[in-house]
Amino acid sequence: MQAPIYLDYNATTPIAPEVVAAMRPFLHEEFGNPSSHHVRGDRARQAVAAARAEVAALLGAHPEEIVFTGSATEANNLALLGVARAQQEKRHLLLSAIEHPAVMEPARYLGSRGWEITLLPVDGTGRVDPAAVAAALRPDTALVSVMQANNEIGTLQPIAEIAALARARGSLMHTDAAQSAGKIPVNVADLDVDLLTLAGHKFHAPKGVGALFVRAGTPLQPILFGGSQERGLRPGTENVPYLVALGAAATLARKRLPDLSLRLARQRDHLHHLLDQAIPGLKLNGHPEQRLPNTLHLSFPGVTGQALLAGTPSVAASLGSACHAGDAVSSGVLGAMGLDQARAAGAIRLSLGAGTQDDEIEAAAAALSATWRRLVSG
Amino acid sequence: MQAPIYLDYNATTPIAPEVVAAMRPFLHEEFGNPSSHHVRGDRARQAVAAARAEVAALLGAHPEEIVFTGSATEANNLALLGVARAQQEKRHLLLSAIEHPAVMEPARYLGSRGWEITLLPVDGTGRVDPAAVAAALRPDTALVSVMQANNEIGTLQPIAEIAALARARGSLMHTDAAQSAGKIPVNVADLDVDLLTLAGHKFHAPKGVGALFVRAGTPLQPILFGGSQERGLRPGTENVPYLVALGAAATLARKRLPDLSLRLARQRDHLHHLLDQAIPGLKLNGHPEQRLPNTLHLSFPGVTGQALLAGTPSVAASLGSACHAGDAVSSGVLGAMGLDQARAAGAIRLSLGAGTQDDEIEAAAAALSATWRRLVSG
Repeated sequence: MQAPIYLDYNATTPIAPEVVAAMRPFLHEEFGNPSSHHVRGDRARQAVAAARAEVAALLGAHPEEIVFTGSATEANNLALLGVARAQQEKRHLLLSAIEHPAVMEPARYLGSRGWEITLLPVDGTGRVDPAAVAAALRPDTALVSVMQANNEIGTLQPIAEIAALARARGSLMHTDAAQSAGKIPVNVADLDVDLLTLAGHKFHAPKGVGALFVRAGTPLQPILFGGSQERGLRPGTENVPYLVALGAAATLARKRLPDLSLRLARQRDHLHHLLDQAIPGLKLNGHPEQRLPNTLHLSFPGVTGQALLAGTPSVAASLGSACHAGDAVSSGVLGAMGLDQARAAGAIRLSLGAGTQDDEIEAAAAALSATWRRLVSG
Repeated sequence: MQAPIYLDYNATTPIAPEVVAAMRPFLHEEFGNPSSHHVRGDRARQAVAAARAEVAALLGAHPEEIVFTGSATEANNLALLGVARAQQEKRHLLLSAIEHPAVMEPARYLGSRGWEITLLPVDGTGRVDPAAVAAALRPDTALVSVMQANNEIGTLQPIAEIAALARARGSLMHTDAAQSAGKIPVNVADLDVDLLTLAGHKFHAPKGVGALFVRAGTPLQPILFGGSQERGLRPGTENVPYLVALGAAATLARKRLPDLSLRLARQRDHLHHLLDQAIPGLKLNGHPEQRLPNTLHLSFPGVTGQALLAGTPSVAASLGSACHAGDAVSSGVLGAMGLDQARAAGAIRLSLGAGTQDDEIEAAAAALSATWRRLVSG
């Protein structure tokens, strides 16, 4: 069987050939431990330093503000739990209602330990209203955490506005940029955040590596304990190949933007147009403009998204987040947006990426339309 | 410059060619997210399941008893902090005095949260006396954690005896097998432990992957929060290439043992013999027999280990643990063994591995002896 057309780049991306090439020496002869004081250790240490500078450059940060982690999940946990441990006197957290489980679940854990958690509502497009943030901020709000882009619907949040409000009130600001990095510009100065999460495998680095930007001076305690790697904030022998890969992916993302964004938006809008013409009553979910350029979350009338994808094996896409894919129920994101049950059940997420070809867009639109027609007439 | 003779396998090992070969497809076309419900996700999920079975086979465990982590440090943290969270009523931990920082530091954190920590002394060879464990166990001892092999001196602990005592008194038993796996047999049934830590990069898998064996029924809470991966015990998108690598390294270790152990012990003892002949007053640290077959920790008279290694650039070795390599002071392990200051300062660790050649042993012995002669006569 031919490989299906991959429209699930928000779930994960292939490692870019340039990235594999960059990490290859570190899978072979360059195997040193960066903590070793001999030539093999020196070369590994230099490679990690270079990768840190590349990741910092993607974000407009200083290299020493980058803490490498084993995943975006771990980076999000470090942001939330690490701030909580460093600020014991403040016991209130403010999150959007549509955060990823990697933010929602550490917050829930803090909730079980006596922290108060306020979930900010979103409108029908999935946007948080900065006025709601202003109203919810309290003197004891340690941290505001709002994702830059939602993983399911792609809606972008007004992070800079929210950050300004948070900082004016003495709260720290964190944003989970796992889905946005590599797709749109992510600059910590423009966003004015204290903490920002990156996920390697969402922008063509491997799964199993992430990073947390920690603005200099931000109070943060580690959540794992051991050696003194990452200035004590994240112990454990450095994953040299993947850190090199993350650096290479960051450099690649910088080079590709903004052209890649424009191309993805054009392809995505063409896919939307083709499906819209074929399927009366098709509905777009998420914000029509303030949205990741690669993400198309659509509700198909009269069918379930599950049946639509099951009937279209030539397209690899998902119902929503891969992280919830085990659940047959519709996601919390669509519920928080107030979508009715039928519209939520009929939804699928099509997410494009650097490898997406124009002819794949045509073929995917034709295949999905054909399945839809078969299902509604069957 | 020619690459130095690598005698620092306890710091880290090269990824085995067989392991790189096994992971290669997952760096390229097989990039699916195991949580995705399409063919790419299916293949990634199957690969992770196969790797889990391979790791379980190395340990004599069931696949569902293996929790993959991003490092041995994380696995040790999960063992200690995860048991602590699951057993709030018991507030006492028992550790050896020579545990790795990845065990010592999470214990210290628990100490700061009101837990009581008892450190078990070691004798002059670095061994824990089971009688001391019996005396220190209390009704509120939640966990006993003793490493199977020390990373610096290589001394093996009587884990099965200690585990029997712990379990008879209702305590859980953890062992950090980061240094032993791949060098000696590590079987969870023989050791009778509840929890056991593996470090990929110590047995020819990459840095940045580890595993925790969790015996079925062991009370354990996660320490990171997010998606439902690893049955909720370790959230985050699975690092498919490295999990495949860990599985391949486990299979390779099973195949190589016990022949590799025998060869390493022969080479190590030959290196010891050569140095002993050349250097009057050379002293072996650690247990003469109950020791990893690859580890040779020696104190050179009249010199510092630091000067000896600095003067021998053709040999890549370390003073002790790479994890402490930044510290000029002698390690806590040697102090706990009661070694005097001069003996500790004159110590280096030579650790052999699968790639060690007989002629490298000869050359390393000659180079170290020459440096020593030069330093003591200079």
